[in-house]
Amino acid sequence: MPLISASHAGSRIEHDLIGNYAIPSYAYYGVHTARAAENFQLSGSVLSSQPVFIAALAAVKQAAAIANKATGQLSAEKADAIILACDEIRSGKLHDQFIVDMIQGGAGTSTNMNANEVVANRALEHLGYKRGQYEFLHPLQDVNMGQSTNDVFPTALKLALDNHILSLLESLAHLRRALQRKAEEFANVIKMGRTQLQDAVPMTLGQEFLAYAVTLGEDEARLREGRLLLHELNLGGTAIGTELNAHPEYRAHAIDALRSATGIDSLVSAANLVEATSDVGVFVQLSGILKRVAVKLSKTCNDLRLLSSGPRSGFNEINLPARQAGSSIMPGKVNPVIPEAVNQVAFEVIGNDVTVTLAAESGQLQLNAFEPIIARALFANLQQLGAASRMLADKCIDGITANKEFLEQRVTESIGLVTALSPRIGYENATRIAQEALITGQGVTELVLSSGLLTQQELAIVLSEMLTGAGRQFQEGQSAEATL
Amino acid sequence: MPLISASHAGSRIEHDLIGNYAIPSYAYYGVHTARAAENFQLSGSVLSSQPVFIAALAAVKQAAAIANKATGQLSAEKADAIILACDEIRSGKLHDQFIVDMIQGGAGTSTNMNANEVVANRALEHLGYKRGQYEFLHPLQDVNMGQSTNDVFPTALKLALDNHILSLLESLAHLRRALQRKAEEFANVIKMGRTQLQDAVPMTLGQEFLAYAVTLGEDEARLREGRLLLHELNLGGTAIGTELNAHPEYRAHAIDALRSATGIDSLVSAANLVEATSDVGVFVQLSGILKRVAVKLSKTCNDLRLLSSGPRSGFNEINLPARQAGSSIMPGKVNPVIPEAVNQVAFEVIGNDVTVTLAAESGQLQLNAFEPIIARALFANLQQLGAASRMLADKCIDGITANKEFLEQRVTESIGLVTALSPRIGYENATRIAQEALITGQGVTELVLSSGLLTQQELAIVLSEMLTGAGRQFQEGQSAEATL
Amino acid sequence: MPLISASHAGSRIEHDLIGNYAIPSYAYYGVHTARAAENFQLSGSVLSSQPVFIAALAAVKQAAAIANKATGQLSAEKADAIILACDEIRSGKLHDQFIVDMIQGGAGTSTNMNANEVVANRALEHLGYKRGQYEFLHPLQDVNMGQSTNDVFPTALKLALDNHILSLLESLAHLRRALQRKAEEFANVIKMGRTQLQDAVPMTLGQEFLAYAVTLGEDEARLREGRLLLHELNLGGTAIGTELNAHPEYRAHAIDALRSATGIDSLVSAANLVEATSDVGVFVQLSGILKRVAVKLSKTCNDLRLLSSGPRSGFNEINLPARQAGSSIMPGKVNPVIPEAVNQVAFEVIGNDVTVTLAAESGQLQLNAFEPIIARALFANLQQLGAASRMLADKCIDGITANKEFLEQRVTESIGLVTALSPRIGYENATRIAQEALITGQGVTELVLSSGLLTQQELAIVLSEMLTGAGRQFQEGQSAEATL
Amino acid sequence: MPLISASHAGSRIEHDLIGNYAIPSYAYYGVHTARAAENFQLSGSVLSSQPVFIAALAAVKQAAAIANKATGQLSAEKADAIILACDEIRSGKLHDQFIVDMIQGGAGTSTNMNANEVVANRALEHLGYKRGQYEFLHPLQDVNMGQSTNDVFPTALKLALDNHILSLLESLAHLRRALQRKAEEFANVIKMGRTQLQDAVPMTLGQEFLAYAVTLGEDEARLREGRLLLHELNLGGTAIGTELNAHPEYRAHAIDALRSATGIDSLVSAANLVEATSDVGVFVQLSGILKRVAVKLSKTCNDLRLLSSGPRSGFNEINLPARQAGSSIMPGKVNPVIPEAVNQVAFEVIGNDVTVTLAAESGQLQLNAFEPIIARALFANLQQLGAASRMLADKCIDGITANKEFLEQRVTESIGLVTALSPRIGYENATRIAQEALITGQGVTELVLSSGLLTQQELAIVLSEMLTGAGRQFQEGQSAEATL
Repeated sequence: MPLISASHAGSRIEHDLIGNYAIPSYAYYGVHTARAAENFQLSGSVLSSQPVFIAALAAVKQAAAIANKATGQLSAEKADAIILACDEIRSGKLHDQFIVDMIQGGAGTSTNMNANEVVANRALEHLGYKRGQYEFLHPLQDVNMGQSTNDVFPTALKLALDNHILSLLESLAHLRRALQRKAEEFANVIKMGRTQLQDAVPMTLGQEFLAYAVTLGEDEARLREGRLLLHELNLGGTAIGTELNAHPEYRAHAIDALRSATGIDSLVSAANLVEATSDVGVFVQLSGILKRVAVKLSKTCNDLRLLSSGPRSGFNEINLPARQAGSSIMPGKVNPVIPEAVNQVAFEVIGNDVTVTLAAESGQLQLNAFEPIIARALFANLQQLGAASRMLADKCIDGITANKEFLEQRVTESIGLVTALSPRIGYENATRIAQEALITGQGVTELVLSSGLLTQQELAIVLSEMLTGAGRQFQEGQSAEATL
Repeated sequence: MPLISASHAGSRIEHDLIGNYAIPSYAYYGVHTARAAENFQLSGSVLSSQPVFIAALAAVKQAAAIANKATGQLSAEKADAIILACDEIRSGKLHDQFIVDMIQGGAGTSTNMNANEVVANRALEHLGYKRGQYEFLHPLQDVNMGQSTNDVFPTALKLALDNHILSLLESLAHLRRALQRKAEEFANVIKMGRTQLQDAVPMTLGQEFLAYAVTLGEDEARLREGRLLLHELNLGGTAIGTELNAHPEYRAHAIDALRSATGIDSLVSAANLVEATSDVGVFVQLSGILKRVAVKLSKTCNDLRLLSSGPRSGFNEINLPARQAGSSIMPGKVNPVIPEAVNQVAFEVIGNDVTVTLAAESGQLQLNAFEPIIARALFANLQQLGAASRMLADKCIDGITANKEFLEQRVTESIGLVTALSPRIGYENATRIAQEALITGQGVTELVLSSGLLTQQELAIVLSEMLTGAGRQFQEGQSAEATL
Repeated sequence: MPLISASHAGSRIEHDLIGNYAIPSYAYYGVHTARAAENFQLSGSVLSSQPVFIAALAAVKQAAAIANKATGQLSAEKADAIILACDEIRSGKLHDQFIVDMIQGGAGTSTNMNANEVVANRALEHLGYKRGQYEFLHPLQDVNMGQSTNDVFPTALKLALDNHILSLLESLAHLRRALQRKAEEFANVIKMGRTQLQDAVPMTLGQEFLAYAVTLGEDEARLREGRLLLHELNLGGTAIGTELNAHPEYRAHAIDALRSATGIDSLVSAANLVEATSDVGVFVQLSGILKRVAVKLSKTCNDLRLLSSGPRSGFNEINLPARQAGSSIMPGKVNPVIPEAVNQVAFEVIGNDVTVTLAAESGQLQLNAFEPIIARALFANLQQLGAASRMLADKCIDGITANKEFLEQRVTESIGLVTALSPRIGYENATRIAQEALITGQGVTELVLSSGLLTQQELAIVLSEMLTGAGRQFQEGQSAEATL
Repeated sequence: MPLISASHAGSRIEHDLIGNYAIPSYAYYGVHTARAAENFQLSGSVLSSQPVFIAALAAVKQAAAIANKATGQLSAEKADAIILACDEIRSGKLHDQFIVDMIQGGAGTSTNMNANEVVANRALEHLGYKRGQYEFLHPLQDVNMGQSTNDVFPTALKLALDNHILSLLESLAHLRRALQRKAEEFANVIKMGRTQLQDAVPMTLGQEFLAYAVTLGEDEARLREGRLLLHELNLGGTAIGTELNAHPEYRAHAIDALRSATGIDSLVSAANLVEATSDVGVFVQLSGILKRVAVKLSKTCNDLRLLSSGPRSGFNEINLPARQAGSSIMPGKVNPVIPEAVNQVAFEVIGNDVTVTLAAESGQLQLNAFEPIIARALFANLQQLGAASRMLADKCIDGITANKEFLEQRVTESIGLVTALSPRIGYENATRIAQEALITGQGVTELVLSSGLLTQQELAIVLSEMLTGAGRQFQEGQSAEATL
């Protein structure tokens, strides 16, 4: 039973190696697409949910047509009709005609077929023919000329990922700037730093937020490096990288056309097309980098939730802005819902990395048949990390306030001050004083003075140096950040 | 800026601890839902995409109203209106009013709030009031009476998972029966069995397919066991399992009502509600079982792709039905697209298991805030495994044919026959003959006879026993399967 | 170049299909073992590091000899010598002769070969022959009679895992009892419960620790169920489950003998031996359960670290016993090193679960060639979880103390008290009071009284009920726990 | 009960904040080490199993002493004794004194303590004192001067990883060269390429092996990039990156000294020490790259096992060298044991990547307490990947032979030839011929000729071009590879 009931709307008959198939008259897709749409009904998410990917597919089809025209394999008339149709798709038209499930067998063949058919049928209209009159312009012989799914799919995937990475980089920078603004705002808020959740030594809240900004900046740098790896393309390799059925000059023309179309000058042809066709290492690497971003965001959000724990029985250092009532039963409760949502996005990204790994490891011989799930996982990761970063910046970081007096008081009362005294009074004396402070509840400064190990003046100098140190460090860190 | 532009359609003003909010007049949800919908725009997938879950939420709200009526906490009038509204939602109505993203902070509070508000507004209508007139029936004081997200969310999640598991069990049984039919069809097709991709000893293709059926049957058994673990509920525990604000008899009434509503007699109240509220072990276990199913399905599909490799340079043992043209460049190529799609579902399930693990490990103190992503991952796994199983049965297994003559010929030519002779001629003689067969290309039987180690008659008996053995094993295995 | 230099110590020559090999005279292993030891030098961890596994292998070899003797296939003299040699190995002797790397190709063939050779050479000595005189008792024809690595390896693996599970169950129970003792000790320590790290409603510290005990008890129950799945054996299936070369009555005898030897009455033969030989679902399931245990232990340790954070700028609710100085620079600092070590064991167990999954998914056709890495991962998980549980009980839980006064004071000051008042004063009044308390720093009780919403007497009753509720819940939970 | 019974051998008493502890007289470690060794008995693998790491720790201690001498904080006499002791440890001495479990709580404090104590006691001897006379040279005040575990541990870890990466790069290059030699050897062996396990179009076996070499070369490039990220150090940051207790000029001196000691000129101080102290992104990234290597190796080994499947009922394209007998029951069977072992190493590396991810995500505030498990996982991955690569090269790749005639015959008989004809005869004609060939068993060339679509001469030209294409591609790929 065909997926699409074509009865009421009129239909045209197309055929493939299996037989005839009634395609709705209004459809720009054809028989290959229809069969795939019928075969795969798994994820509930179809190609049209990925406009960036569809545009990338159209850019590849367009580049191929330009190249085939240049080498004289395709008539100018056909080529121009194809180019025009691709322009339309790239501008967002006909996306609803991409109906195949994102989870699909066939290594992306159905995605390529869908693109071939939509482009062909739209180009036919431009040439004055009707949809389905493939004798005048054929989805496979003309639109797919010199191409194979083996090279079209990964090329379009890389271009789409590149685009998504640029968006994510903007979102991460947006978040980083929000963190940095808070770092400046909190530059003079002294607090206890912690290791292993135990009070360590004083620092500023500004240093803490600056570290979040800097660490995110490093992820951006890694992502920019990872992006460049996507620019090596196997377009022109056709079946398994042999260049079979492609004109000798096709490859160079096609890559040129892609460079023009996308504005990415660093697009190059892979040196070894057989390797480039079977290998998905670049996707594994990118997934690893996205996992790194997820780990950092999740750790940052864990910290924010911890620092804002309370309001009375927690760390109570900072306040996250209230975004919604926190409880259906506990009135007045406000929860760190924004960081919690980011954590969950991170968990999904980390899980998707395992999915990508399994798919990559399962590739066999000259092709990895599982690129569609790699595409699905990476698109989800890129989109969700971007949305999460913007949400975190706009709905949480920007509204954070600090409990300055409370934090300062904690530093004054802290046992960790003893660390600064240790070089003067010795590790073992310092240990004894720390233990006494813990047991008696007394302050470290008080105990040091009463022990006679330091004079009040000596003590004042040491503590002042410690707190100044935090300040100095902050200034350096800040300037360093600017040179990322 | 609110997500929903309420200007043109009229609106009502609701308020929460943050302030006023304009809700579209037509909306059944209220301020808490609207804020959450605005806060979380991450996955593109909202609650309404999970009708089973929404129905489960309504069942919980309904059970709570029945219990609150029974204990006299809620007036019969209010209770009946709530019960009626829940009936409507359970029958599929108003699902479009569940608009919060599946990835949400707040441990599911927004999901609970969304349910409270839709139920309240619909119940208000039944009482003759307008949406938003909460003074007559309140989303939190009345609909959520005696409840907390802490108990409502996991209870509804468990009921929804139970429902999905039953569906998956049907799909797996459907697939198992398809495999078993093929096992019967291929009961007399002799072939070489393999270990480590190397020819081992003869078996029947029926045995091979029966093993797929049996192994799936074991997964079904595990899934049925895992399902029972979901029947322990923390409903009535309210905040962190303390039963705070719930009438002493509420819990028993509520569980009773859920049993009636769902027909699941084994629903029970957890013995320790504090533990039951913080613990998500049951979801980790379920995810592990689903991963097991995924591993089995993936392994089975790997085998199907291997056995059907060819058509000329592969194993070429079986033929999968052609479902679509396999290549945009290679005419006549047909690919194992259905198993490939199943593999990819399996990879996603395995990745989601890691997501669930991370979410579970990240729970803190009295609650796991990350249950929404656990819900999302498990729903996806259950749905996709079910769809994949049916697809595999209907679009692949049912149409498989065997290359009987080719397989038999391979057995006759095989070196593995020597294993059956080993007890008679000794392991070392057998090794020598195997090596000679490999080098010279001669047949094992020929070499054994020429070596004088066995007579033709002795040889015939041994080989006949070996092949009979396969048959006997098949009969036993088949009957065993029926008693699962 | 052979791994073992045999020159100085004298050697004997053995041979296999590759050729001759000099084996040191003192060695009980033979050529197959030696080649494997030379081939695989990967993990640095060899079979002798797993005495439980070696004993299980010997038990299988012993059971096979008993069965082969019973069916008359093996002479009583040979069988008895084998049985005696196996007894010695089971009692811990000759383990240093098991020299193959735990990571090995060949689906465990080298492990089986190592066992065959050590047993054969030791049995030869019992018969009055020298090591290497295989003409009198052969490692493959006699010791391995009626067997294949395909059935020996998984059978021995299951028996070894069973043994390790019993040990782990003891360790988990030991930890659970330690937690339960603390639950009793802290039964009257009132504290604030938390959801999402935000103050929620009061509970007792006893409830909190009891929940850790109960949740661990549930894991024990799951582990006991998972253990039973290991009792279905494929012994007797020989190559790919065909029973080829095994006497028709061998299987029943062998399983009987294993039951006697191990005392595990529930050992049974798998109904379908072909399926049982290729399937590793039971290991995936067990790994999933161990991951569940790891998740629980990790979550518990996360909580312990959080509750003991401080000593001044943290939650400061409980004190973990000092086990060692915490810092090389910060005198007096004490860290939660024991829970931190448990967390790391848990992370490794979770990683190993992915390893097991990949190995399971990669099985092909009639055998999973990757059982050795499954064995390695599961053994590590079982051993490390057991050691971590005991360490946690003895070096941390037993010494935990509570800061009772501090905790009580926090409850009195808490805003969460308002939840108990909500049913009386309404959700919205309660929200307003909570917000006012937060902003002004005033107490909730104070504000309720000044607002006139409740009289002092009414308030006292409500609060008393809330705290009594916690106590009641604790009693129930405790008794429930005993019926696990 | 102390781990080490000191009774019979004499002992010295040391003390820490917990109390006195009897240390064996012969021990170079002290009380902090002894407590840690007693506390952590989890993995069975202690620091001494990681000589590269111990040497790196000694290099850091040495650099610190040099820096402290240069700033005048440490007397020349003490500094020189420390420097000399570190030289000894770096040259392999005293490694048996590093006795703490690799899985340890405390963020590596025990590792740092162990190094401090061994260095101090050895330095004391150089100064003419006895072990334990810390009044003359103190493990913490002198050896650990200006340091914290917070900076020492990650610095030593990075240096050790750097060293292991260099070893792995050599092993990968060794494997790559072996693959490349085979690529050259098989440059003229024509075979069918495959996509999705289905026959696609012809290629050479040389191309196939060259792709393995090239893809590994890309991994090497990624690993070299990842290595550079390790060169940013936080040494000098002391506690949480504040530089507390370190002389202002200490940091620069220390990094200088490390550069001299290691010969790694690119070692630099991190711009933001607070960030550098809490962040473990570089380890996540490195783990991701190692996972990528594992995925590639595993995929390559999967292919090798597939291509060598048979000997009669498989692909039978290549022969792996026999390394050991393959079966205890099936005489003459030879298995692909070397690739199988590599697969298992890869599965472990992928699992360890999840472990690293969990550990990284669990870092809190100013420090990640779980760096020890990160160290353990990364060391294992680097060592095992290196050993596996060398094993694969030496024990498998070098001995591979090709079944040239069989492969050529398969190409001649293949249906995939039709792809080359498709541009001439049209996709639909080509499809029809492919289907006819499949059904009738006839050859494609035969059918094309009989159909009259091409003349014999035309056909010969097309096929010759196709096969020449493979050759051309090979030449290009080969030269390209050299410029990596």
